Amino acid sequence: MPAGVAGRPNLNPGMTRLVRADRLAAELGVSGELHVKDDSGNPTHSFKDRVVAIAVEAARAFGFTTLSCSSTGNLAGAVGAAAARAGLRSCVFIPHDLEQGKVVMAAVYGGDLVAIEGTYDDVNRFCSELIGDPAGEGWGFVNVNLRPYYAEGSKTLAYEICEQLGWRLPDQLVVPIASGSQLTKIDKGLRELIALGLVEEKPYRIFGAQAAGCSPVSQAFKAGHDIIRPVRPDTIAKSLAIGNPADGPYVLDIARRTGGAVEDVTDDEVVDAIRLLARTEGIFAETAGGVTVGVTRKLLKDGLLDPEATTVVLNTGDGLKTLDAVASGSRPTAVIRPDLAAFRAAGLA
Amino acid sequence: MPAGVAGRPNLNPGMTRLVRADRLAAELGVSGELHVKDDSGNPTHSFKDRVVAIAVEAARAFGFTTLSCSSTGNLAGAVGAAAARAGLRSCVFIPHDLEQGKVVMAAVYGGDLVAIEGTYDDVNRFCSELIGDPAGEGWGFVNVNLRPYYAEGSKTLAYEICEQLGWRLPDQLVVPIASGSQLTKIDKGLRELIALGLVEEKPYRIFGAQAAGCSPVSQAFKAGHDIIRPVRPDTIAKSLAIGNPADGPYVLDIARRTGGAVEDVTDDEVVDAIRLLARTEGIFAETAGGVTVGVTRKLLKDGLLDPEATTVVLNTGDGLKTLDAVASGSRPTAVIRPDLAAFRAAGLA
Repeated sequence: MPAGVAGRPNLNPGMTRLVRADRLAAELGVSGELHVKDDSGNPTHSFKDRVVAIAVEAARAFGFTTLSCSSTGNLAGAVGAAAARAGLRSCVFIPHDLEQGKVVMAAVYGGDLVAIEGTYDDVNRFCSELIGDPAGEGWGFVNVNLRPYYAEGSKTLAYEICEQLGWRLPDQLVVPIASGSQLTKIDKGLRELIALGLVEEKPYRIFGAQAAGCSPVSQAFKAGHDIIRPVRPDTIAKSLAIGNPADGPYVLDIARRTGGAVEDVTDDEVVDAIRLLARTEGIFAETAGGVTVGVTRKLLKDGLLDPEATTVVLNTGDGLKTLDAVASGSRPTAVIRPDLAAFRAAGLA
Repeated sequence: MPAGVAGRPNLNPGMTRLVRADRLAAELGVSGELHVKDDSGNPTHSFKDRVVAIAVEAARAFGFTTLSCSSTGNLAGAVGAAAARAGLRSCVFIPHDLEQGKVVMAAVYGGDLVAIEGTYDDVNRFCSELIGDPAGEGWGFVNVNLRPYYAEGSKTLAYEICEQLGWRLPDQLVVPIASGSQLTKIDKGLRELIALGLVEEKPYRIFGAQAAGCSPVSQAFKAGHDIIRPVRPDTIAKSLAIGNPADGPYVLDIARRTGGAVEDVTDDEVVDAIRLLARTEGIFAETAGGVTVGVTRKLLKDGLLDPEATTVVLNTGDGLKTLDAVASGSRPTAVIRPDLAAFRAAGLA
């Protein structure tokens, strides 16, 4: 990267809250320190702003003029916003049948938004084709040809967690798995801080979290396999729904090397966990946050997480983007006439 | 306030980004420093987290056990989340015909949510009745009986803006007007910093921004009146839709005393301004942010804002909460088959 990064327009993501979650800890039977790293506080409300920030700088260094990606949600908004702020053209590719809310988020920043008549896999295949064609010259696809840079952005999660803990390593981390890249980069970030002497070296354990409806890494971990068998995703946790996760084998290595594990929870458990986190700590997570909190609860129940240790659970996105997951159970307690008699009759006094 | 505030669970809002907005400045013809104070970065994504944080501490000091409010949106989420984190019961009152998204946000934190068969005015009247009744004992309504504390929370916007400018006053601020409380408290905050010697004293001008469909303060300012004539709100900027703003007369005083003004923009101008801010700076504002950016543009055109001065424009909320405002114009640029011929035919290469 060239010097002067700080002087160029960037969304400046990161340094999100590390929330000490004592009320969640009490409900889960955790006596040690429990923290939630809440990345819903990023500019477009997901951890994707971190990785895109690095991709933008790489795009500038390579002289790319168009920032692009394939996406079904969080990444589209992050790329659109970052390109707008940086003064780059953007062109984002999405499946044609995306929910309207996600389309609005992807389009509002004024870049080109191309709906592809096909599945997300078709979108990805088309993007790879475009990169190899003269039409794609000068295009930086953040999650394809800029991926090596992009992925490094996740290391900032590790840096910040240690800094916010007072420059010490947590004992345990629970990290969601989509492609698996984020988990591997958090491990890399922790090892870098150790190598630099910025934190005292000690063992830490990394746990991966998946939704049962898309759990190829969890299945491989439990079966003792080194190879990931791809699945067809079927879960409400759409931001984690990658059926053939590229970094899956590395995730298995890290979970095994550090003494962690990979676990999955059902969609019902995801919704319960979103509600648990909201009710105890006032954090409204997207479904991916429900996956990590749900897996944390399951790992504690199974004795795989130490309840006396210092644990950090990641929430990588925002509940406002996945309202449907909790809509059916989020209704008024009572509907009443505006008078005290009605209020008393509803048993609310 | 009792000591030890920092040690008690709180959502810890504030210290949101002050974004240097050079691309927006260029489009608006501003040659001075233009900044956007982006309060969408707060925990529940509006400035309401600031005022509620103070109300929570006041509620604790008074021994209240239930946190409550009347709300049609941002405040409901802020109170629900803050109460959850603080371990207080919450009971939020809303009109029965609220949009589903807002109901989900108000309900997800697990407090009681009571839908009132009536208008927002009916909800407010009922809340005042409840405070005077034994049934309301121990209840802290953040925007009623806790209002004197609650309102002070807006001063933190002034403190942070000066700190983020390197402990100096801006020359001009553009602030949205709902009840008018926020604008008066920002003025108070600036005067406190001057009195304490934390910033060098110099003139600053405060401008108020309303939507044309709810512009009683703007109308009074332009007519040279001291009294606000209430209106029936009809605007997409629902978070600013208070037809009889309690602090309106104080806003008039401040705008006149500081050499500012109060202006309003149409709903179409609000939508244009939301898009302008998104396209230039990657900030997706709620309608209230469209009001301040739109008014900024209008004041510059009319020569009321100095384009060479240091100006701060407030964005107090998040575009994800008012998606409908921009939905109709946020569609894909093109819908194509996943092949290069279709891509070229769409003119995107």
